Amino acid sequence: MGVNDSSLRFGVLSKGKLNLITDVPGVKTGHTTLSHGDVQTGVTAIIPGSGSAFRDKFPAAVTVINGFGKSIGLMQIQELGTLETPILLTNTFSVPACAEGLLTYMLDSHPEIGTTTGTVNPVVMECNDSKLNDIRGRHVTSEDALEALKSASSVFDEGAIGAGRGMCCYGFKGGIGSASRVIEAGSGIYTVGSLLLTNFGRKTDLAICGRSLFRDEPDSLRIPDKGSCIMIIATDLPLSCRQLARCCRRAQNGLARTGSITTNGSGEVVLAFSTVNRVPHSCTDPVRSFSIFDDNCLDVAFRAVSECVEESVISSLLHAESVTGRDNNTVLCLNDYLKQNP
Amino acid sequence: MGVNDSSLRFGVLSKGKLNLITDVPGVKTGHTTLSHGDVQTGVTAIIPGSGSAFRDKFPAAVTVINGFGKSIGLMQIQELGTLETPILLTNTFSVPACAEGLLTYMLDSHPEIGTTTGTVNPVVMECNDSKLNDIRGRHVTSEDALEALKSASSVFDEGAIGAGRGMCCYGFKGGIGSASRVIEAGSGIYTVGSLLLTNFGRKTDLAICGRSLFRDEPDSLRIPDKGSCIMIIATDLPLSCRQLARCCRRAQNGLARTGSITTNGSGEVVLAFSTVNRVPHSCTDPVRSFSIFDDNCLDVAFRAVSECVEESVISSLLHAESVTGRDNNTVLCLNDYLKQNP
Amino acid sequence: MGVNDSSLRFGVLSKGKLNLITDVPGVKTGHTTLSHGDVQTGVTAIIPGSGSAFRDKFPAAVTVINGFGKSIGLMQIQELGTLETPILLTNTFSVPACAEGLLTYMLDSHPEIGTTTGTVNPVVMECNDSKLNDIRGRHVTSEDALEALKSASSVFDEGAIGAGRGMCCYGFKGGIGSASRVIEAGSGIYTVGSLLLTNFGRKTDLAICGRSLFRDEPDSLRIPDKGSCIMIIATDLPLSCRQLARCCRRAQNGLARTGSITTNGSGEVVLAFSTVNRVPHSCTDPVRSFSIFDDNCLDVAFRAVSECVEESVISSLLHAESVTGRDNNTVLCLNDYLKQNP
Amino acid sequence: MGVNDSSLRFGVLSKGKLNLITDVPGVKTGHTTLSHGDVQTGVTAIIPGSGSAFRDKFPAAVTVINGFGKSIGLMQIQELGTLETPILLTNTFSVPACAEGLLTYMLDSHPEIGTTTGTVNPVVMECNDSKLNDIRGRHVTSEDALEALKSASSVFDEGAIGAGRGMCCYGFKGGIGSASRVIEAGSGIYTVGSLLLTNFGRKTDLAICGRSLFRDEPDSLRIPDKGSCIMIIATDLPLSCRQLARCCRRAQNGLARTGSITTNGSGEVVLAFSTVNRVPHSCTDPVRSFSIFDDNCLDVAFRAVSECVEESVISSLLHAESVTGRDNNTVLCLNDYLKQNP
Repeated sequence: MGVNDSSLRFGVLSKGKLNLITDVPGVKTGHTTLSHGDVQTGVTAIIPGSGSAFRDKFPAAVTVINGFGKSIGLMQIQELGTLETPILLTNTFSVPACAEGLLTYMLDSHPEIGTTTGTVNPVVMECNDSKLNDIRGRHVTSEDALEALKSASSVFDEGAIGAGRGMCCYGFKGGIGSASRVIEAGSGIYTVGSLLLTNFGRKTDLAICGRSLFRDEPDSLRIPDKGSCIMIIATDLPLSCRQLARCCRRAQNGLARTGSITTNGSGEVVLAFSTVNRVPHSCTDPVRSFSIFDDNCLDVAFRAVSECVEESVISSLLHAESVTGRDNNTVLCLNDYLKQNP
Repeated sequence: MGVNDSSLRFGVLSKGKLNLITDVPGVKTGHTTLSHGDVQTGVTAIIPGSGSAFRDKFPAAVTVINGFGKSIGLMQIQELGTLETPILLTNTFSVPACAEGLLTYMLDSHPEIGTTTGTVNPVVMECNDSKLNDIRGRHVTSEDALEALKSASSVFDEGAIGAGRGMCCYGFKGGIGSASRVIEAGSGIYTVGSLLLTNFGRKTDLAICGRSLFRDEPDSLRIPDKGSCIMIIATDLPLSCRQLARCCRRAQNGLARTGSITTNGSGEVVLAFSTVNRVPHSCTDPVRSFSIFDDNCLDVAFRAVSECVEESVISSLLHAESVTGRDNNTVLCLNDYLKQNP
Repeated sequence: MGVNDSSLRFGVLSKGKLNLITDVPGVKTGHTTLSHGDVQTGVTAIIPGSGSAFRDKFPAAVTVINGFGKSIGLMQIQELGTLETPILLTNTFSVPACAEGLLTYMLDSHPEIGTTTGTVNPVVMECNDSKLNDIRGRHVTSEDALEALKSASSVFDEGAIGAGRGMCCYGFKGGIGSASRVIEAGSGIYTVGSLLLTNFGRKTDLAICGRSLFRDEPDSLRIPDKGSCIMIIATDLPLSCRQLARCCRRAQNGLARTGSITTNGSGEVVLAFSTVNRVPHSCTDPVRSFSIFDDNCLDVAFRAVSECVEESVISSLLHAESVTGRDNNTVLCLNDYLKQNP
Repeated sequence: MGVNDSSLRFGVLSKGKLNLITDVPGVKTGHTTLSHGDVQTGVTAIIPGSGSAFRDKFPAAVTVINGFGKSIGLMQIQELGTLETPILLTNTFSVPACAEGLLTYMLDSHPEIGTTTGTVNPVVMECNDSKLNDIRGRHVTSEDALEALKSASSVFDEGAIGAGRGMCCYGFKGGIGSASRVIEAGSGIYTVGSLLLTNFGRKTDLAICGRSLFRDEPDSLRIPDKGSCIMIIATDLPLSCRQLARCCRRAQNGLARTGSITTNGSGEVVLAFSTVNRVPHSCTDPVRSFSIFDDNCLDVAFRAVSECVEESVISSLLHAESVTGRDNNTVLCLNDYLKQNP
């Protein structure tokens, strides 16, 4: 016996074709996975759309649910409301290496950066995978980051892969989870997608579609949960950065439904971007026109975010395999655990 | 048949003696209820502790989950980290009358305000009860506010009473709900309590302890939910205003578990205060000492907030009676509805 | 001898026709002044543009420089990025009366509010005028508020008038000050204007165009400055709420140049709105198009805000007359003081 | 002729012994300077106090005046109110190398990080020195960062040194500037100090103690200013993180007095820490006691911050030498310019 994704119901909206963040047109995702002995870690890249993110930036926003974390690049998104690079996810101590790789990626393709125009703002987000990974070893290289970027595709795997290789969630093997929803507004059809790096929670708190499977197991609440959850939201809705920030805040609803109490040590950060209304780096005319979605119609987007985030958490659990890593620590995936504890 | 509070399980922590916010020592609550024909509204007062809140302020914090609302007094709490008056809850258009009443209450007992010292910051929070109440009539008076303050006690009623008289929640009669949790930390025993004014949500979204009772009923998501939820958190834990703000952000977890997607039109605001480490209005020595709780131990407080808020929402539904008000609109309480639709 | 506005130079940009906030097309300002004995106070109304602010809202933003204050209506502006009523300024304890008056104004002209649509968010901002005014008496009525709204015009007076009647600034008589700048961007000509309610600062800190006139006078820094400054910025530049918030933050530059150190007790709040790109209350189509200004071109707007705010502070000093009020307290205006202390 | 520091007067408070941030007991500063041809850059390290910053953290706060910047480590400071590493300053594209160096520094001295306890939050802040430095070359190494940390001392140089080597300010050579003030509160004597990395502003805006030396020179405002200013504030006042954040916001007053209009492209970020009330990483008892400063007495600290920041900007100009760097670009220091243009 086990838990099967297809039998679960996360809300009421329609899912996208692949039920992945890449259902949002233009979004691509790639992984580099390092898996040998004490090294169980990696990089996951999200490319927000085609063409140069620097020359035509993406409207974006960030919300910090709990700021116990070391992500970089968020401040400028909050000020300017734009994303100008792909997003990398990795382990906490590999943020500098990934930032180097992302800088190389941007500088190589943009000779104007740092010469005739200003600098560029790399975005790298992280969780701590030290239970399964020798995080102090800083095994991820800037080349690993470049490889994740180059391998990005509209089809990608979830689970114990990429940045998710060493992550744990609700006491089980976590990692990468993704989902999408298709919504109607006026005469348009739009997609909202999410990709999560899940690394938080204690087993007794896990709720799957409202069911608490392990609530009555013995658990000492005195042992603090150290974890984090990075949440990326993508959409082709024409949302302003203010509206994207409002979407970000709804991610907590999805997390909470899986049982999260957002512990002190859990860095919970949400980044949302829209693939439309791209913002030119240089403007010839100071005034340009663009389309904007009405706040009165945002509820369906908020619902889509809640549903996607809830499903992404559970999806990360269902796609991950059991992993043995640092110091021979083993973390079972949910279905292996259920097989062993029927 | 119906839903019975005692059979429901909201988390794992112990409840306080009354399972009300007033289990936090010193906290008192009072109601003024107006209920005649088109007038179904009122005032609820929360007195944070004994003595003058102005002369010995309460550490406090505010978090805005969704700022579609008209509460007053929040800015100064965010700047100074202190609450210096009782808190009043009422309907949206009665905020000015309640602010007048609260000013009168403070000025009468503090001749120094506005003469030898500065001014005072009244806190009034609100939801829109216009479905059941003639809100345009502004029927609440400053005397009603004073009466609620004067009637405050450690025992109080929940449901369709006070500011909750005209409120609706998940399509049923909502209003005032409260809960508490008792927690241990080090050698101390502490209490966390919550009081909510619930006025949000659509029936198909309601989840009671993870169960979605009405999910499959027909529902047009195109009709927006207009509502709000005011959440007051009290504790005798020695928390700083930064830590109280962190507690406030966990209130969303409790809301989300009852089914909320935090709609565009829902003003969701959380105010938390601690009853200890009171801050003197005037200091003789610029440096004073106080006790502070360690962030590493906050998880149990975060869990208590999540549990209290979830239970307070459901408690408001279970305590409210059906009400008929403006234009003969009737909103059934949950148990009346279940009786009529078995 | 004295200080003369026309001889002073505040920056390098061109001034508008009247050098008032009402140089921004559509903006109107009106005052109600109460001046008899201990009652030296009033109301100032700013109407952001023609037609209904509720049905066609104004893009807006708020920045709190120092949140020691009791203004209302700010939270919703921060969430939704829109202003939906005129703005009233008054003394701290007359906020409820003015809110009542503004509610009456809005309800009378909008029968849909509170019946077929939601509620409305009145904006009232304040300073403490208790040195010259019997603030505890709460002498301002909701009718005074209505009168200020009705008297609004594109020509208005500065100084010890309206909400500014009892205010003090840098030890002199302060009150209402205003200024404007005309800027070019691309092929367009735009106006930025400011209106300030000045009530802050100690005499020894005052700097006029970089000159510190009273720096060497004896002054005990131990007596805290209790004051505030409300700053309203208007423009016909097509700015988003994010960009308006960025403009708000530049108001501090103007304040600082007049000598402000932004004391603990000074409530410094900035509200900015744009008169273009108005946002409909109800939308027939969820996607609409609008124009937006490029962030790369914002510097001239930031400069205009700095210049306007600096000049508005000094203008309030130069336009105010000496006033005697509560307990026969007299506060001299700057030029009377200079005449008496040549 | 020229401008001489000793003849200038920045406010009214007493200066510390060295008039440097290191007048705050325990604070140390070190530089690594790279200066050869196109490479004109470096690293500046600020060590907040003795012992391990990780095991006994420093109360800290961050305020973003304008978030056009790429600093790292700020989010966690904002959430937890603590600084747990030294602070490094460098050029924008050397943030990853410095973060690597700071991680090495912390991991080497703390075997528990990433094994028996959680991770660590390195803080690296930056400005863009591409006018004088080959920033794309990323010439700073993690060893350079370690060297700056190891060389930290209570005596250090200002000007075109360390991270300031390639920076420009108001059209002149900028870089590192520092100042301090000694204040009395109650029976105590305290110090406030600042260290700035100055890289912003146009020549015509520069004001030195209120005097605009170059205002009437021709200047096309259409050429945007690209710059930044990083501001570090240290104090031995017992301030909470909320109070430190309030201090941060006053830094803008000092900047504004030197002429800044806080342009769109200028990343202006302030970090303040207190050297007292250190926060243990691990607690044996969840409640500890500490001392706290009264908000009513904060004005003198706010004044000290304003004065220190203003003086630090001008001090960076007066200490910097003229530098020739990338593509033979030369930026004159202020006094060389005044000699050449008498």
